[in-house]
Amino acid sequence: MNDDAELQDLGPLAPGFAVILVDPQLGENIGMVARAMANCALGDLRLVRPRDGWPNPAAVGAAAGADKILNSAKIFQSTTEAISDLQTVFASTTRLRDMTQDVYSPREAVKRMRLDVAHGLKAGVLFGKESSGLNNDDVALGLGALTVSLNPKFTSLNLSHAVLVVGYEWLRLVDETPDVKLALPKDKWPAKMEDISGFFEHLERELDACGFLGIEEKRPIMVRNIRNIFQRARLTEQEVRTLRGIISGLTKK
Amino acid sequence: MNDDAELQDLGPLAPGFAVILVDPQLGENIGMVARAMANCALGDLRLVRPRDGWPNPAAVGAAAGADKILNSAKIFQSTTEAISDLQTVFASTTRLRDMTQDVYSPREAVKRMRLDVAHGLKAGVLFGKESSGLNNDDVALGLGALTVSLNPKFTSLNLSHAVLVVGYEWLRLVDETPDVKLALPKDKWPAKMEDISGFFEHLERELDACGFLGIEEKRPIMVRNIRNIFQRARLTEQEVRTLRGIISGLTKK
Repeated sequence: MNDDAELQDLGPLAPGFAVILVDPQLGENIGMVARAMANCALGDLRLVRPRDGWPNPAAVGAAAGADKILNSAKIFQSTTEAISDLQTVFASTTRLRDMTQDVYSPREAVKRMRLDVAHGLKAGVLFGKESSGLNNDDVALGLGALTVSLNPKFTSLNLSHAVLVVGYEWLRLVDETPDVKLALPKDKWPAKMEDISGFFEHLERELDACGFLGIEEKRPIMVRNIRNIFQRARLTEQEVRTLRGIISGLTKK
Repeated sequence: MNDDAELQDLGPLAPGFAVILVDPQLGENIGMVARAMANCALGDLRLVRPRDGWPNPAAVGAAAGADKILNSAKIFQSTTEAISDLQTVFASTTRLRDMTQDVYSPREAVKRMRLDVAHGLKAGVLFGKESSGLNNDDVALGLGALTVSLNPKFTSLNLSHAVLVVGYEWLRLVDETPDVKLALPKDKWPAKMEDISGFFEHLERELDACGFLGIEEKRPIMVRNIRNIFQRARLTEQEVRTLRGIISGLTKK
């Protein structure tokens, strides 16, 4: 473990959402869980009986900078103790068991958790050991099971992958990132239609001159198709200048 | 690598969706990518210049049974070659670059991929090396960037985590798992209301007898509240029998 003061700042982490690893075996997996938690702005990591003791250098290596989460991880000797301050607990499982259980999709489970946390409650998800998952006694401690619907022939998720899916859905619930957005470097601006029309006229003037648009009855549709190619690319001002330079270059004697 | 014949059956894997790892460094990560792909029923893994050569024993260990995907992985010397048969390519990136780019959410990118694949096209996602991601030349090969919206202070995803998010969204698009479902072991059935009413009457009879429901004007609301506790649990036939047994046990002389 490193000194907290010199560790990477992870920004504000969600209050009221605990990730509880029960009997985790590999330090690497604990570290990758911490990394996934940092990616999803979750900070409350709890470990029940980590097999190889704690702290664990292998965890630090795999955390890729999420050391703050490892440093503040709490260690418990029983699952009951680890969840004692929580009101809403889900148990992550990948297979059906001989238990009567409400089975929640990750999205639905984190919806309930977000709602409860917004009301000042504390929530958490239990994750079992790598080799065999949670035992039935631990599953019975939850309000319900949280099960990721996967390829039915291959349902065994890596521990950090299971945590990531839950954290990812937690983020998604309040994520307002548009489905598609045009990212522009700071100094780049989408071209105005005036600039684009200037480019089109330049191009078509040269295509008329070289005879490419020489068949009168086909000219309108050819012009339309060529304009369409460039319009789909949503050109920047810089790109319009580059394209005009290309035309000038190609038509130079 | 093991003999294909004795490997775990992964069921049908999605045709037309390639995962392309460019300059992957750690065999463990390639193995965990294969595992995540098997979880999400994706089979087409392509490796561009894997640093430690191929095959790689560390990959097999981390694949946790997804060896079939490793065995059929194709190796390429350039990204262009690796995507030559694909029509729809996205470039997974975690940070903004000095490039003008359409940036797709994972969900929106896999929507386009599903649509194209349904029309017989082939699609893929490029993932860069662990230390630095894709270079700008590789990003420029894509129709757009695919960027997971994460904690802005900690956006670096483990390679297999990035693949998992994309595969998970790919599965989710056609997943019809209900948000919540009651999972019952084979021999368990939810109780009929007749059985539940029988239990309530049994309980209330005993509570009347012992005086717990003795305050006449409070009796209706107390009965309603007690019934409500048990109704929320959606009891099975077996559980109703157990609860009746508990009442009989507690009231025995």
